[in-house]
Amino acid sequence: MTFHLSLNTGTVRDISLAEAVEATAQAGLGYIGVWRDRVAEAGLDEAAKMIADAGLKVSSLCRGGFLTAADEAGQRSALEDNRRAIVEAATLGTRELIMVVGGLPSAAHVLGGRGDRNDKDLAGARSRVADRLAELVPFAREHNVRLVLEALHPMYAGDRAVLSTLKQALDLAAPHPAETVGVVVDTFHVWWDPELEVQIARAGREGRLASYQVCDFNLPIAADALLSRGMMGDGVIDFAPISRWVADAGYTGPVEVEIFNQEIFDQDPALTLKTMQQRWEELVLPALEGRG
Amino acid sequence: MTFHLSLNTGTVRDISLAEAVEATAQAGLGYIGVWRDRVAEAGLDEAAKMIADAGLKVSSLCRGGFLTAADEAGQRSALEDNRRAIVEAATLGTRELIMVVGGLPSAAHVLGGRGDRNDKDLAGARSRVADRLAELVPFAREHNVRLVLEALHPMYAGDRAVLSTLKQALDLAAPHPAETVGVVVDTFHVWWDPELEVQIARAGREGRLASYQVCDFNLPIAADALLSRGMMGDGVIDFAPISRWVADAGYTGPVEVEIFNQEIFDQDPALTLKTMQQRWEELVLPALEGRG
Repeated sequence: MTFHLSLNTGTVRDISLAEAVEATAQAGLGYIGVWRDRVAEAGLDEAAKMIADAGLKVSSLCRGGFLTAADEAGQRSALEDNRRAIVEAATLGTRELIMVVGGLPSAAHVLGGRGDRNDKDLAGARSRVADRLAELVPFAREHNVRLVLEALHPMYAGDRAVLSTLKQALDLAAPHPAETVGVVVDTFHVWWDPELEVQIARAGREGRLASYQVCDFNLPIAADALLSRGMMGDGVIDFAPISRWVADAGYTGPVEVEIFNQEIFDQDPALTLKTMQQRWEELVLPALEGRG
Repeated sequence: MTFHLSLNTGTVRDISLAEAVEATAQAGLGYIGVWRDRVAEAGLDEAAKMIADAGLKVSSLCRGGFLTAADEAGQRSALEDNRRAIVEAATLGTRELIMVVGGLPSAAHVLGGRGDRNDKDLAGARSRVADRLAELVPFAREHNVRLVLEALHPMYAGDRAVLSTLKQALDLAAPHPAETVGVVVDTFHVWWDPELEVQIARAGREGRLASYQVCDFNLPIAADALLSRGMMGDGVIDFAPISRWVADAGYTGPVEVEIFNQEIFDQDPALTLKTMQQRWEELVLPALEGRG
């Protein structure tokens, strides 16, 4: 089995899609994972063409989601936005639309959104995610796109995702066809989970393991907690066991590196790609290939 | 059932034990939860006398633990320190010794400790915690002290506790008598857990629910992530359901407020106690008493 490395444009946040595509192709990678804001800047059709012309494939589109609104207007606008994201994924030629499901209405303002500051009902927010997901599934299916549920680290349970574990993601996916609702394993978010090995195996068995993303968990946690993601090897995560579990679960797709880290944003993207490739070959690939 | 509020001295970090005892008694609380550093400053016997003379009881001693050392010297020193903590708890007249089990050797330096910076073996660290716990149980039993396992928020899995969920804590406690190994529910650490209701009920059934601690999860996360704990009502946690689950599980002990928060450290401790009592009566007590 040959595994492919993919650059997620979040890792090179401050350059354009054209620059990211060029750097990725130059580094010899076959895949790129793209964020919607970079695609929007370039224009959707132009982005698709640019990526194809460079000989790259899109490993995933980031991101759909934010499905927890309690008011009707917020729910309608979330559904519209997610339908647009589904169309974008299909246009870009990827099946995998990463879904960050959203946080509590009471915490939405932290990210500049709106919501009732008194609404801290976690069970209610989770139940609305399930409802919105069910509403999106037929549209995703028509477009041959998979809604890929991302369990986020529990430190983001308030403002970004009330979905915090892989088990919870698989339970949420369970009512839907595996080709339309999958899950992603992002090491930063799930490395600590005592149930991780069991749930990765389950994801494989259920045919829902749609994406594997690697980056490290840096310590001390960055002052802006969102930027605590690190280059593999710089933090506390042991990539070998997790990568073995992912390979044992039958995952054969591209492996994305998505790092939000100010130091990495500030450095030459070519250096980022080079370091990324070295660390991948040293810390991730051997375990995926059953050599480490 | 009458529930009692307790001030954990961590909430008033910068004052002496004598000052904390006085403020607690003055506020009319019957309990205080104490940190070992404050006790050591006062002297153990003097601390016990001071607390008793003020008419207070000790709800818990914080903290034992840090059991993950991989080298023999580190393991021996951890066992010695925990035996001292057990004696201190008994001397202070509390059965509950809160255990923060420790992080990865590779991350120990973040807290000023030592350890192999390459040792990121999470399963190994967890297995050493189980081994050290088994070694401490007979000594704790002799002293009629309960080792109270604390699942810490997964954001601290690297440097502070490889124990991240209540389920994991109960699984770790399972081989030992319930009167000697218990668990604590600290809302900050576990509020996000999709299994929380089920595991609190299990803790009650198994007779291991030894302590309930309340404080909020503030957003955005503080620049020093340890200080993101907040006064109840200031963050994203809904205290009603969790408090109901705790009461339904049969918990009748004191409820500690332990908040690490720079603004609260900087304000008058009397104001902290007053706010704490108001929020307790508004947000926690009604649910414990089945009124909310």
